[in-house]
Amino acid sequence: MNQQAFQDNYPNEFAHCYGCGTQNEHGYHLKSYWDGAATIAHFTPEPWHTAIPGFVYGGLIASLIDCHGTGSAAAFGTRAQGRELGSEPALRYVTASLKVDYLAPTPMGTELELRGKLVAVKKRKVIVDVMVNAAGKECARGTVVAVKMPKAMTGL
Amino acid sequence: MNQQAFQDNYPNEFAHCYGCGTQNEHGYHLKSYWDGAATIAHFTPEPWHTAIPGFVYGGLIASLIDCHGTGSAAAFGTRAQGRELGSEPALRYVTASLKVDYLAPTPMGTELELRGKLVAVKKRKVIVDVMVNAAGKECARGTVVAVKMPKAMTGL
Repeated sequence: MNQQAFQDNYPNEFAHCYGCGTQNEHGYHLKSYWDGAATIAHFTPEPWHTAIPGFVYGGLIASLIDCHGTGSAAAFGTRAQGRELGSEPALRYVTASLKVDYLAPTPMGTELELRGKLVAVKKRKVIVDVMVNAAGKECARGTVVAVKMPKAMTGL
Repeated sequence: MNQQAFQDNYPNEFAHCYGCGTQNEHGYHLKSYWDGAATIAHFTPEPWHTAIPGFVYGGLIASLIDCHGTGSAAAFGTRAQGRELGSEPALRYVTASLKVDYLAPTPMGTELELRGKLVAVKKRKVIVDVMVNAAGKECARGTVVAVKMPKAMTGL
């Protein structure tokens, strides 16, 4: 993909997230991109990201939905202002609530695809639905309610 | 605590969960216990489990709620049958849905306390509420709908 990932536009001081921060050397480094009007990310679980042998750990799935959701929120929020990601001021969102429905056991040993769809963009809040597919089957579906990062977190 | 953790009663073949499996050498090894009629677990995030510097990664919080919820479901489900955990047949639950509300930024550098409360126990399903406290403040609250492990996952 020739696009720059959403997360590569996060200011360095906000790029330490375990799920998607470029500055977190232990983390998952999830990368989210535009795919038309939707958003997309891919991730291949490590062998130890299991629930029971053969199936992916639900906490990892929740984490990926969370990070793809907040990354997509930044993209949708910025686009709603008629701007490109990477322009100033950078919008950065945190999760107010996360809901995940596990629809089917998610098999290990295959790349997961996360697709994000905008539900609503408001002044302080963006709602994103995220579908998780493995080997062509939808295994989980989530909704992320993302809010602009509170001042208590930015220290500004 | 003198009790055996719920997760220490899981049969070895179902004890590979990244969040709480005793057999997963990379995982979090969350341990859940009875605390009267409720359940309790503690976890201290590693320095790299950050969202932005100073605050705990929401995906980790969701993962801990998930594992404490399903562990508590096994305990509540077994107790509802008038049995002790560790007796046969072992009940093992997986997450059907997970909802997390992030109430306040969760500070790093302190032990998290997870408290589980039974909402409902049914034949195939247990619903558990989980509160996450850090430094005496409630930072997140979740609900786990746990269902008995489907045959597709157990291979039985």
